[in-house]
Amino acid sequence: MLENEFPSVAVIGIGLMGSALTAALLRSGYRVNIWNRTPEKCASLAAQGANVSPSAEAAVAASGIIILAISDYANSKTVAASAGLLGKTVVQISTGSMMDAVEFHSFCTAGGAAEYMEVKIMTYPALVESGTSLLLASGTPEVYIKLKPLLETFGKSRFVGEIISSATSAMFAWSAHFQISVAGVLESIRAAKALGVEPALVQEIASFVGIDVDGIFSRWQNAADRIGPPGLAKSGTVFDYIVAADLIIGSTDLAGITLPVLNAVRTELYKWVDYGFGHADVEDAFEAARRHSENLTTG
Amino acid sequence: MLENEFPSVAVIGIGLMGSALTAALLRSGYRVNIWNRTPEKCASLAAQGANVSPSAEAAVAASGIIILAISDYANSKTVAASAGLLGKTVVQISTGSMMDAVEFHSFCTAGGAAEYMEVKIMTYPALVESGTSLLLASGTPEVYIKLKPLLETFGKSRFVGEIISSATSAMFAWSAHFQISVAGVLESIRAAKALGVEPALVQEIASFVGIDVDGIFSRWQNAADRIGPPGLAKSGTVFDYIVAADLIIGSTDLAGITLPVLNAVRTELYKWVDYGFGHADVEDAFEAARRHSENLTTG
Repeated sequence: MLENEFPSVAVIGIGLMGSALTAALLRSGYRVNIWNRTPEKCASLAAQGANVSPSAEAAVAASGIIILAISDYANSKTVAASAGLLGKTVVQISTGSMMDAVEFHSFCTAGGAAEYMEVKIMTYPALVESGTSLLLASGTPEVYIKLKPLLETFGKSRFVGEIISSATSAMFAWSAHFQISVAGVLESIRAAKALGVEPALVQEIASFVGIDVDGIFSRWQNAADRIGPPGLAKSGTVFDYIVAADLIIGSTDLAGITLPVLNAVRTELYKWVDYGFGHADVEDAFEAARRHSENLTTG
Repeated sequence: MLENEFPSVAVIGIGLMGSALTAALLRSGYRVNIWNRTPEKCASLAAQGANVSPSAEAAVAASGIIILAISDYANSKTVAASAGLLGKTVVQISTGSMMDAVEFHSFCTAGGAAEYMEVKIMTYPALVESGTSLLLASGTPEVYIKLKPLLETFGKSRFVGEIISSATSAMFAWSAHFQISVAGVLESIRAAKALGVEPALVQEIASFVGIDVDGIFSRWQNAADRIGPPGLAKSGTVFDYIVAADLIIGSTDLAGITLPVLNAVRTELYKWVDYGFGHADVEDAFEAARRHSENLTTG
């Protein structure tokens, strides 16, 4: 096995996605240096062979390729400023706006990064870990070709374009459907309750036609306990929706187009927060909103 | 092969769904008597072995089980009144409200039908023909058990309940998601155009995660040329949406619940009709709505 076939990779941030990326890399034979603000989360990956670094700086210094799996771009800047990126190949997977992507690329270039690629992961951590994910990449084609074997550790990858924000644009375009679709699943469950049908039957029909309702629910449920985006003390399922909807609507508004259905979804989301269900499971939030409107009607 | 193993079945109405039902029955060994208002549509099924009846009355008289695959309940009543249902087992697959289902059941019982079952088909005609559909049934459990082998010719079947409108309720509950989901696909394509991403990429991502975007579009496109529901001269893709959304929203409103996302979808649908795109392909209608709003902005 040649040394440069399996280069040393740093994974900075060991949340749900960082853990999945690390597990997939380790299984494919990469040497992985990991760092997390709270080191406790690194224990099971250490048992699988990951090298737990005492600092982000140490993880970066020991690696040629740096994967940033941190909550957002602001935290990415803080970590990158302290760790240094001189001569490194940077892969950014955090979620932010297209402007965030452009700014962070400039920041890394100014900091001496040798190569840079935006990679947006379109599936759940479990699919990343099993190598059946879908990744969208934007940046320099030569860097994409170099990184492709590494990205294929996580699943199928697709080069979207040289404009650095292209992967984010494509993710938002698709996410509009995802956001609306999840709202559709929840509305269909509300409709079932109203029409005297077991909500479980809706899930049964959905699973027959190939919609992974359990996956959708568990994805948002899993998100309930992790640290959230800036401005929100804690991420919850409804807040996750709002942040995603705001990013998509903000970007499409700038491009001169409105998305009426997604706007309706966002309006509903803010109602749930008003009812005090910002941190709650989305189905609970729907239930609360229904009770709230019943109270308005009856009282 | 015993005579009563493969009873003689009438299929009344040879549209897209009636054709698929007949083809599946013929392949499974049933003797099928078909009738359609315009007999030309029966030619290819006749070549496959179907007996083309000169009248609905003749088709019903020659059959023990009568499948009604007519556009709606009003037309079903007209045909049933002229053909007679005395002693027959009636399977109603037309789309209507829950009240339609209750009324038509009473109508058939009063007309002497021996057995009755509401069956709602949750998938495309192509899946019915290949025997991989999903059917929801409501009525008497004994009738369901008797009809199950016949229903399995079309795919998987599920008994929903004894209340005759239950299958319709379950279909509406699920359809709320389907309507919203299709609107979500179209909004994601609009978003892609706004954000400078190839719309084809949205379809590529959708197909990767298991959403059949081509199937969704072709389903509605196929609907554009068939005869529509009462009150509309001709069914088109946007009208199909409106009728479905109206039925779901009407039924859930009666049950005391509103569906905000589906309401937003309906509001959009009516806008498209205002723009003159009621009979058009839904993606064209979205395109027209976008141009319309651009004109409002720039002019």
